[in-house]
Amino acid sequence: MIIVLKNAASPEQINNFTYMLENSYGVGVNRWDGIHSTVLGLIGDTTKVDIEFIDAQDIVESVKRVQEPYKKANRKFHPENTVIPINDTVTIGDGSLHIMAGPCSVESEEQIVQIARDVQQSGATLLRGGAFKPRTSPYAFQGLKSEGLDLLKAARRETGLPIVTEIMRVSHIDMFENVDIIQVGARNMQNFELLKELGKIDKPILLKRGLSSTIEEWLMSAEYIMAGGNDKVMLCERGIRTYETFTRNTLDVSAIPIIKKLSHLPVIVDPSHASGKSWLVEPLAMAAVAAGADGLIIEVHNDPPHALSDGAQSLTPKQFDTVAKKVFALKNALDQS
Amino acid sequence: MIIVLKNAASPEQINNFTYMLENSYGVGVNRWDGIHSTVLGLIGDTTKVDIEFIDAQDIVESVKRVQEPYKKANRKFHPENTVIPINDTVTIGDGSLHIMAGPCSVESEEQIVQIARDVQQSGATLLRGGAFKPRTSPYAFQGLKSEGLDLLKAARRETGLPIVTEIMRVSHIDMFENVDIIQVGARNMQNFELLKELGKIDKPILLKRGLSSTIEEWLMSAEYIMAGGNDKVMLCERGIRTYETFTRNTLDVSAIPIIKKLSHLPVIVDPSHASGKSWLVEPLAMAAVAAGADGLIIEVHNDPPHALSDGAQSLTPKQFDTVAKKVFALKNALDQS
Amino acid sequence: MIIVLKNAASPEQINNFTYMLENSYGVGVNRWDGIHSTVLGLIGDTTKVDIEFIDAQDIVESVKRVQEPYKKANRKFHPENTVIPINDTVTIGDGSLHIMAGPCSVESEEQIVQIARDVQQSGATLLRGGAFKPRTSPYAFQGLKSEGLDLLKAARRETGLPIVTEIMRVSHIDMFENVDIIQVGARNMQNFELLKELGKIDKPILLKRGLSSTIEEWLMSAEYIMAGGNDKVMLCERGIRTYETFTRNTLDVSAIPIIKKLSHLPVIVDPSHASGKSWLVEPLAMAAVAAGADGLIIEVHNDPPHALSDGAQSLTPKQFDTVAKKVFALKNALDQS
Amino acid sequence: MIIVLKNAASPEQINNFTYMLENSYGVGVNRWDGIHSTVLGLIGDTTKVDIEFIDAQDIVESVKRVQEPYKKANRKFHPENTVIPINDTVTIGDGSLHIMAGPCSVESEEQIVQIARDVQQSGATLLRGGAFKPRTSPYAFQGLKSEGLDLLKAARRETGLPIVTEIMRVSHIDMFENVDIIQVGARNMQNFELLKELGKIDKPILLKRGLSSTIEEWLMSAEYIMAGGNDKVMLCERGIRTYETFTRNTLDVSAIPIIKKLSHLPVIVDPSHASGKSWLVEPLAMAAVAAGADGLIIEVHNDPPHALSDGAQSLTPKQFDTVAKKVFALKNALDQS
Repeated sequence: MIIVLKNAASPEQINNFTYMLENSYGVGVNRWDGIHSTVLGLIGDTTKVDIEFIDAQDIVESVKRVQEPYKKANRKFHPENTVIPINDTVTIGDGSLHIMAGPCSVESEEQIVQIARDVQQSGATLLRGGAFKPRTSPYAFQGLKSEGLDLLKAARRETGLPIVTEIMRVSHIDMFENVDIIQVGARNMQNFELLKELGKIDKPILLKRGLSSTIEEWLMSAEYIMAGGNDKVMLCERGIRTYETFTRNTLDVSAIPIIKKLSHLPVIVDPSHASGKSWLVEPLAMAAVAAGADGLIIEVHNDPPHALSDGAQSLTPKQFDTVAKKVFALKNALDQS
Repeated sequence: MIIVLKNAASPEQINNFTYMLENSYGVGVNRWDGIHSTVLGLIGDTTKVDIEFIDAQDIVESVKRVQEPYKKANRKFHPENTVIPINDTVTIGDGSLHIMAGPCSVESEEQIVQIARDVQQSGATLLRGGAFKPRTSPYAFQGLKSEGLDLLKAARRETGLPIVTEIMRVSHIDMFENVDIIQVGARNMQNFELLKELGKIDKPILLKRGLSSTIEEWLMSAEYIMAGGNDKVMLCERGIRTYETFTRNTLDVSAIPIIKKLSHLPVIVDPSHASGKSWLVEPLAMAAVAAGADGLIIEVHNDPPHALSDGAQSLTPKQFDTVAKKVFALKNALDQS
Repeated sequence: MIIVLKNAASPEQINNFTYMLENSYGVGVNRWDGIHSTVLGLIGDTTKVDIEFIDAQDIVESVKRVQEPYKKANRKFHPENTVIPINDTVTIGDGSLHIMAGPCSVESEEQIVQIARDVQQSGATLLRGGAFKPRTSPYAFQGLKSEGLDLLKAARRETGLPIVTEIMRVSHIDMFENVDIIQVGARNMQNFELLKELGKIDKPILLKRGLSSTIEEWLMSAEYIMAGGNDKVMLCERGIRTYETFTRNTLDVSAIPIIKKLSHLPVIVDPSHASGKSWLVEPLAMAAVAAGADGLIIEVHNDPPHALSDGAQSLTPKQFDTVAKKVFALKNALDQS
Repeated sequence: MIIVLKNAASPEQINNFTYMLENSYGVGVNRWDGIHSTVLGLIGDTTKVDIEFIDAQDIVESVKRVQEPYKKANRKFHPENTVIPINDTVTIGDGSLHIMAGPCSVESEEQIVQIARDVQQSGATLLRGGAFKPRTSPYAFQGLKSEGLDLLKAARRETGLPIVTEIMRVSHIDMFENVDIIQVGARNMQNFELLKELGKIDKPILLKRGLSSTIEEWLMSAEYIMAGGNDKVMLCERGIRTYETFTRNTLDVSAIPIIKKLSHLPVIVDPSHASGKSWLVEPLAMAAVAAGADGLIIEVHNDPPHALSDGAQSLTPKQFDTVAKKVFALKNALDQS
């Protein structure tokens, strides 16, 4: 951490400040005097130094971190990729490509079982589906809730596909015990109380990026879960909010290689929510795989116009089949080159 | 709601779609045929029409709401300003100006009582202070929690100032029973499960705008609370996330008159979080009052450089006194003109 | 175009307004009366209807375009892809993939000729290089100017590679006569006076997207050039400005398929400026090609640390060779599937 | 400037780099060695050190400026406010408040003279009006051009009001000789060729902030003009582009006190373009004045629904009169307190 002091700082103030830094945080302090300012450099573990506290000092002009503020999620300290086994056949982060497919909302047993069979046939290895739905409007369909979870499990029994579904509340954690991957939605990425509780269980977590979260904030939210002891975190890029209104969000495809460099955690990409338009799912899925994603999460609905949520971005099973074929062909080509 | 159909839509498809709209939603449907497209207009209450469902139809090119999707928060249906009495002397939304002041985090009884006395002397009529703190890093100070709530109540006993503090979790609602105003932070603005529960209690809620929430989404979150039966909602503009990095956020001062036009709910402005810099608090507070805010929420700390959180944006009691005097003088001048 | 009128509009006002629309713009007007509002729909060519003028009417609540405001750039009216021949061997937009490579700034004959040979060897079919450089600071290197153009031509003579370079001023157009493709930079995307003049010449234009331009504004800038009679426009996605600070800009990979759908113009992607970091060029180039780009423009410098501008995002010729090989292998795989 | 080196940097590389810095830029270099990284601090005038060049070095992890990159626009080097006399009676930046009012486009002599008289009566001290209009669409009205300039001068003869109007092209500079203030529009804020030429003349320039320009980039554009010798620059905040779509732009009211702190140049605020809605002009004008603006630029049209551009955000002369009265009353109250 580098601290630039104000011109006006007196020698006594600087000495007191240096003394405090060394004693409160156990860090070493280097100092040099420029013409317009004095600069301090902290040596040692600065993860616990509160940058806002430093920034608040009267004599401080500005502060800059050199070390990243996350540790467990940081590739520097864990050079090997995190590999997360889901069941006997599915492992995420080992260089293979997995597609999680299914409807935005679970609607009926018939629906979810049929979709599960269809997407499995096309190569999907996990089933996604919403039981609890975060909706902007209190008047919109909020999901089948616990019944939805039961239906997902029924589809798993039929197909063997592990299931991925979203949690919205701490008190539901018990209910999610038999879910294979628990998803944390974009709107809850900084619901720190939920993250803390998910850190206490031994279950893979799919952490979606917040609507306008920086990559660093996203990694800090992963760190919340990991700090509690749960290392099985996957990060899901689902588009960020920008000024562009043609798409619902803007897929930040750069986030894939950046996460791969900064962290050892797997990256999943959601082209359905990123664009909000079904005809954009294929090109965005292709881009994500070419940029190095470990997996995709794609909305598939047997009857998109009658979907109870997010129909506009859902593929039919047939459309999904085309996309999956192209995506796996691309992955093969990339693996061989 | 206006629905533009695709060129390719057949007369039969259009008839079926129209029939469905009339029967599923009980709305009337008007239609006219342009050269490049057919347009349908829905007549009646469209609040419950799911715009995403409509948008997902094969034959639909685009949809546009004419009516706002919020109802209870909508000034059209409640032309009078909502006025929220807090205690015998403080009422928000009645044309008066109130300042909620206090530290980002409650740290000790001595600290909070002293700050409460100081800010009261300067004209603040409510005491703010964080007991549960949402922090980006799991390693940063997370607040004194329930002890912090006790200290706030102690300060209230000493000064009579009603207290405002942030909730982060549904299971804490009981603990907040004796709090005067419950704050929902920006990161929880779309924590819908929390909003639903806050709709069931009879307690004023201060709903902060999400980091990148549109004004409509913000009003929809207010609607979540109000739909549950709790009408006592205040909206707090605290800066939005933009590309500009000089300030922590960008204060959206336009939000004040816009909320006043679209809704009947009171608007509070937080110049401390909006800027992240104590020297910007005064000009932003002045701007907010000139633009019509009902109140301000300002961070004050007896010793900002030693604050356990957000010191950089805190004022000392003496600085706050200056700001408060200027702000009330401005309010007087505005009231007289 | 659909116009929603205010509740308060009187029948007489509506009649007058309708009459004006029909007579000023030669469009037909359909009307229907809802409970809360009256809606007008315009029939016919609305390209020339000034949406701001309509929006300014006292009786108008809101306006929505149904038809896109661009015509010559619109795929609806020109279903075939625009194909732009550059020289005997290079044609852009015909399904092939072209890479424009070279340094941000031309620095010397030796430098530019050597880089041209190197990138040609690796498969680049066009040479890019800046002679006039738009720099944020007036104190930074501004390019070799006309001398830089001469050096580019020397490199073309040596290698046969057509040259792409940026124009910054109307009065330079004559100087660019022997350039093969004239680039308009992001900061000049809405320099309408420059666009108008470029519409009068017969020369391919590479139009970069503005830092925060919507896709529609970008197409409207293409329309400016095309309205003057010059149809040879290529669009270059080079990253947009968002709140994320890790990368210099955020590559909007969705723009590729969107432009392909809305327009018939070729799309080139600039992964170097989009990211500002050389290690991100490869994954972003791969993503762009997988999403359907017609070409790439990549910064290559023989000695990036000594580049006079933008060294941080430049590849060495050797690094470029690796990227080019991967990108062409990907393109082959995509063509065969 | 502080340069953090990579872990991997060898002592020899560091020495060579240090030597280069001292010799190429004439700066002193301080160094300290941390555990994870070595840090260099540059001492002396770093304005001319090219931060991108430094960032491109293989051994550099990151760079941070301590000194601002602008000099002539920097308050540190020019503590006194810049005061710009326009004519015998109007001086900008001296603590007084000035309103520039008038139509978006000049349309006829009758129109501009009448508006000039009206706004003068209400207290405006400068007349604004567009002769050359930057329009998103090539098919929209582009202004009366040189005839518009003549009409503005006619209105000046009638009223004595100095005139402000926008330039779009270097070759028009001669034509603007008798204009009192030349405006550079948001879309041309980084038209560096235009800025350079405006630096060579002796004429006040009103430099609008680019649609998504940072405050630093905006000041660097002012620096371009000032570096050429023209110190008479006023900065105009006109709203920035954000994700919020309710307003055309988001007024960044914080920019006012920030510019006042960083620079000595006057700040003018444009509430009309910032919001795009006439009913928002009053509250935003009030906010701007309360935050310390030196002036306002407001669109006024005798007949907004028939304005040839930007009618939606124009006030009638009568509405303007109300706004002006409130704004001057506010300014008086602020001056007395």
